[in-house]
Amino acid sequence: MKAFAKVRPEPGLVQIEAEKPRPGNHEVLVKVKVTSVCGTDYHIYRWDEWAQAHIKPPRIIGHEFAGEIVETGSDVTTHKLGDLVAAESHIGCGRCYQCRTGNSHICERLAIIGVDVDGSFAEYVKIPEQNAWPIPSEVPVETASILEPLGNAVHAAFAADIAGSDVSIFGCGPVGLSAVALTSVAGALSVTAIDINDYRLKLAQRMGASKIVNSRELDPVAEIHRDTEGRGARVVLEMSGNEVAIRQAFRAVRNGGTVILFGLPSGEIRLNVADDLIFKEAHVQGIVGREIFRTWYTVESLLKSGKLNLQPLITHRMPLNRLDDAMKLVGSGECGKIVLSA
Amino acid sequence: MKAFAKVRPEPGLVQIEAEKPRPGNHEVLVKVKVTSVCGTDYHIYRWDEWAQAHIKPPRIIGHEFAGEIVETGSDVTTHKLGDLVAAESHIGCGRCYQCRTGNSHICERLAIIGVDVDGSFAEYVKIPEQNAWPIPSEVPVETASILEPLGNAVHAAFAADIAGSDVSIFGCGPVGLSAVALTSVAGALSVTAIDINDYRLKLAQRMGASKIVNSRELDPVAEIHRDTEGRGARVVLEMSGNEVAIRQAFRAVRNGGTVILFGLPSGEIRLNVADDLIFKEAHVQGIVGREIFRTWYTVESLLKSGKLNLQPLITHRMPLNRLDDAMKLVGSGECGKIVLSA
Amino acid sequence: MKAFAKVRPEPGLVQIEAEKPRPGNHEVLVKVKVTSVCGTDYHIYRWDEWAQAHIKPPRIIGHEFAGEIVETGSDVTTHKLGDLVAAESHIGCGRCYQCRTGNSHICERLAIIGVDVDGSFAEYVKIPEQNAWPIPSEVPVETASILEPLGNAVHAAFAADIAGSDVSIFGCGPVGLSAVALTSVAGALSVTAIDINDYRLKLAQRMGASKIVNSRELDPVAEIHRDTEGRGARVVLEMSGNEVAIRQAFRAVRNGGTVILFGLPSGEIRLNVADDLIFKEAHVQGIVGREIFRTWYTVESLLKSGKLNLQPLITHRMPLNRLDDAMKLVGSGECGKIVLSA
Amino acid sequence: MKAFAKVRPEPGLVQIEAEKPRPGNHEVLVKVKVTSVCGTDYHIYRWDEWAQAHIKPPRIIGHEFAGEIVETGSDVTTHKLGDLVAAESHIGCGRCYQCRTGNSHICERLAIIGVDVDGSFAEYVKIPEQNAWPIPSEVPVETASILEPLGNAVHAAFAADIAGSDVSIFGCGPVGLSAVALTSVAGALSVTAIDINDYRLKLAQRMGASKIVNSRELDPVAEIHRDTEGRGARVVLEMSGNEVAIRQAFRAVRNGGTVILFGLPSGEIRLNVADDLIFKEAHVQGIVGREIFRTWYTVESLLKSGKLNLQPLITHRMPLNRLDDAMKLVGSGECGKIVLSA
Repeated sequence: MKAFAKVRPEPGLVQIEAEKPRPGNHEVLVKVKVTSVCGTDYHIYRWDEWAQAHIKPPRIIGHEFAGEIVETGSDVTTHKLGDLVAAESHIGCGRCYQCRTGNSHICERLAIIGVDVDGSFAEYVKIPEQNAWPIPSEVPVETASILEPLGNAVHAAFAADIAGSDVSIFGCGPVGLSAVALTSVAGALSVTAIDINDYRLKLAQRMGASKIVNSRELDPVAEIHRDTEGRGARVVLEMSGNEVAIRQAFRAVRNGGTVILFGLPSGEIRLNVADDLIFKEAHVQGIVGREIFRTWYTVESLLKSGKLNLQPLITHRMPLNRLDDAMKLVGSGECGKIVLSA
Repeated sequence: MKAFAKVRPEPGLVQIEAEKPRPGNHEVLVKVKVTSVCGTDYHIYRWDEWAQAHIKPPRIIGHEFAGEIVETGSDVTTHKLGDLVAAESHIGCGRCYQCRTGNSHICERLAIIGVDVDGSFAEYVKIPEQNAWPIPSEVPVETASILEPLGNAVHAAFAADIAGSDVSIFGCGPVGLSAVALTSVAGALSVTAIDINDYRLKLAQRMGASKIVNSRELDPVAEIHRDTEGRGARVVLEMSGNEVAIRQAFRAVRNGGTVILFGLPSGEIRLNVADDLIFKEAHVQGIVGREIFRTWYTVESLLKSGKLNLQPLITHRMPLNRLDDAMKLVGSGECGKIVLSA
Repeated sequence: MKAFAKVRPEPGLVQIEAEKPRPGNHEVLVKVKVTSVCGTDYHIYRWDEWAQAHIKPPRIIGHEFAGEIVETGSDVTTHKLGDLVAAESHIGCGRCYQCRTGNSHICERLAIIGVDVDGSFAEYVKIPEQNAWPIPSEVPVETASILEPLGNAVHAAFAADIAGSDVSIFGCGPVGLSAVALTSVAGALSVTAIDINDYRLKLAQRMGASKIVNSRELDPVAEIHRDTEGRGARVVLEMSGNEVAIRQAFRAVRNGGTVILFGLPSGEIRLNVADDLIFKEAHVQGIVGREIFRTWYTVESLLKSGKLNLQPLITHRMPLNRLDDAMKLVGSGECGKIVLSA
Repeated sequence: MKAFAKVRPEPGLVQIEAEKPRPGNHEVLVKVKVTSVCGTDYHIYRWDEWAQAHIKPPRIIGHEFAGEIVETGSDVTTHKLGDLVAAESHIGCGRCYQCRTGNSHICERLAIIGVDVDGSFAEYVKIPEQNAWPIPSEVPVETASILEPLGNAVHAAFAADIAGSDVSIFGCGPVGLSAVALTSVAGALSVTAIDINDYRLKLAQRMGASKIVNSRELDPVAEIHRDTEGRGARVVLEMSGNEVAIRQAFRAVRNGGTVILFGLPSGEIRLNVADDLIFKEAHVQGIVGREIFRTWYTVESLLKSGKLNLQPLITHRMPLNRLDDAMKLVGSGECGKIVLSA
């Protein structure tokens, strides 16, 4: 089968001819219909410090996808041929403390599709049966490929009390944009979206932000304080991973407020722990992945409710063989989510 | 001044000529502009069992109101003449365990305006300065009189996780109707409103209910299970106080779900504690009043956000001297909130 | 093999000769070493209303046990022959909303060992591999049979904030007694144990209760209020299932306090919902089973810490073939936990 | 009256002759009986960066104390002459969002006794009546002066789930030592105390630590992982303020665990936010002061329960006029709490 892989420890991705995967007893084989590009894929493409530490070539990458089950392992009982499924990309070991206490997304021996095992930038991908999530009939298959990153946004945003809160969101990549839409429909008093890219800020506005701030032009901390009677935001979602933004996030939150950290910085960060965290009695919550499957039920409920306007989020559609173009587009920042069709 | 009072231990309210109240050192005198009718007022009017146990005539009743400060006690520092204010109706003692731990709304020696001290169905009412809440300029004075019952709905609804939940609301009086609007803007997957009165169910629909059920015609428990794949509602708000509805509320909630009890039954209730509460691991939360002043800040934020459509809620406006007509209307159930102008 | 079963829909249990169970692919066969008697077993023995509604004879009963794995199904990977294990008695379906969100103990299609499938009052019992919990070397096998009911107590007690709280426990059966020990080591300000049986109250005292109340002689509600400056208990654990006690539990809790309901009443209960739950803003939490496996980790941690004095809890030891005597002893109330050896 | 003050912007404290304070209408005048030394006092004595930024000389310092009310303002109603009281050192403005939502300890315009207003290293100190806490008869007046720092420990430790958890405490100053005692009586599975000072580690052991680690000799992160099957501590309390320790605290916590930050670093801290916080989904909670007065009730309850062994905590007693010796002793680290008598 055709696939895109990191074949050598260097920048770029190469189209290869790979063997079609054969599902194990508790696995299903999925024929990929749509697969979308995540920031993580771009880290791997660029071969940055993080990628060098985590990827062992050769590896087929990609982990956001939806497709059809075309083969099932001998012990599979929960899915059948022909089922349309999306995938939870985190594979727990099933045996550690975290897995056995309902937190397999932070499994002590976590494997991630497209990072630790072969992924979805390919014609076929095999996954454990329990990682396959049936796509409800109300959800188009294209949207199904972004259930996984939408789940990140749900897990991050709903870790804080949104209804009635003034919310600030740093970083308007696809997960940040999803968080804008989510917090807006979840009753936020106001949603301030911050980025350095006007293209993305315009998307944020279309997805429901009540205010956008280009932090190259205005100080977002000053703006947020002005808009909240000097108090600061009750909830800050940090979705950028940028050091400057992370520091601003902590200065923007009010006393007793909540900072959700989701964006991954590439190195260590300097923080004023005394003034920005302790004296404020800030709550800080690191967020990764999705709660399996609590988050998925919530995502599905929100989609079925029809309240969530995700339409502006998918800005580009192209065939998988244009993956290189897609990566360059991600690098430019001039895109929302890019969906690739197989 | 003119006022309406329970003067004898019997049904009805009588218009009286009372002395204008004189504020104590830490009190303010409010000239009432608008005052609205609460279910509690109707209990007192009817002189039912609850009223007989709690009201010691003579007592001027009424506790939902907004008006202008026309006199301030000698030590008042937080408000000044001419301020427009609404009122928190619960007066804490300030000294008990509850008051000293941020829960004065469940003070061990609680006094309620219009129940334990004279109230707002009058030209003037005096209240402690800390019970006066400045009306923001964005909020019309008419709406300000219903901040207090809206606070009940906020306190009740936000005691549960609303975003992404299927919510069922039993009882569509003004607080139930407010809860319909609130849960709808706070990202509920669905909001099912249940009542026995079609007039009120129509109001519920206008305020955002995704489904209405007249429980005289359909079994709400069966409806809710059918709509939730047999699982039951994640959140049930009981706002009616009716025994049949309370029992249905417990049967309608899913395993691990939340039942918020706000509506006050007049007597004891039989419950199937084993099947409907223990085996389900239901969370049950009694709710009374408002968190002082956390709820008020949330109410104000929601109003300022412009997301909350309260317009259908106020169905009738009349002068205070038609209080008797207002009471009869409440008795008929053919009304939302009735606002009386002084 | 020899086993004790309910063979006909009538009181009593009968010793039978049954076929040795054959484990399925994902099951293990356990040779029972010790098995203990639960209140549920006594309900079944007596054949009361609850038992008649839930048990379909013939059924081997018993669900608290520890033993050795002597056979493993073909796909079992997490346990091996010779392992000593205790058992989680709740078997989730693995597919429903509850199971997939970390709450399999309240599975929508829950099966319970010794109730819905054959149990441990037998030489052998088969269980799903994921229900087997390895007994740590620090824990004697006799104690291991009571990990399951101890888990009930942990799940119930730690659903409330114990440290610094005045705690009242209604009902001093084995789970109530375990809760006395647990809350005592978890920093409760005081632990008041209430029962109608002096034998059990003496056990409660030995397990750490700071006060015991025989509610046939003294009004526990009055005692609790006197001991808490009139405020009521911050946490009440209801472990009796008795209607009088449940009503007292709600009257004993303070405003804003927590009532944990674990004891199963046999029929409906009358409650003063307005005064005892709503006006108090009581939190009520139904508790059943154990969180799988969060509770088990906590139980194991507490046992390993050496802080928990369970020694007084096991009052009787006898061979399994004296089950009938054991049942009569349970009926008398003159016992703590009875452990039967195979 | 005699007092010790920072009179000029330079190291040291000077004994001065000051005017006896005159209480305002809502204030009480306390004759200081005992006053103890806090780390903050030592910062001010040394005149470090933090002190230079926060103290405006002349200022009488000291904020941990107990004494007798000898004068009351004209409007004081909650205390009377002769009452023995301790003091909450945080004075809220009473009007801001934080104060009006039950969080006056993080008031937007907070004043601290001995920092922003004159303090207790003096014969007399005046405080708002609502900051005076009556000393219960069970508590000796000497102990009463350390209710305030003990409250820090309660507020910090009980912000996490202690019962059944493995707890690591970095920093064994008086608040860290108090946290050792508290977590130990609150049912921690284990309490590991970490410091670089053997004197303080020995105190930690006497106060209930199950293990002590001198981090100059052993790597505490490696020790904690070894003791927790490689998982890390469920709860980490950072009470040192030292950068090395703060970094270790984040590496020591398990996935999904809780880091409580209380110790104040003097400058910015570098953190590996991605690996130590986000991928772990760590909960981080900044802690300052005490919840007013929820924490005080808990402190008092714990003292009354008799479970808390604070006896080793007070290592030195001396007259107030030896304050300079006390400060030198704090600098050496060879002390627990030092109590000064007036």
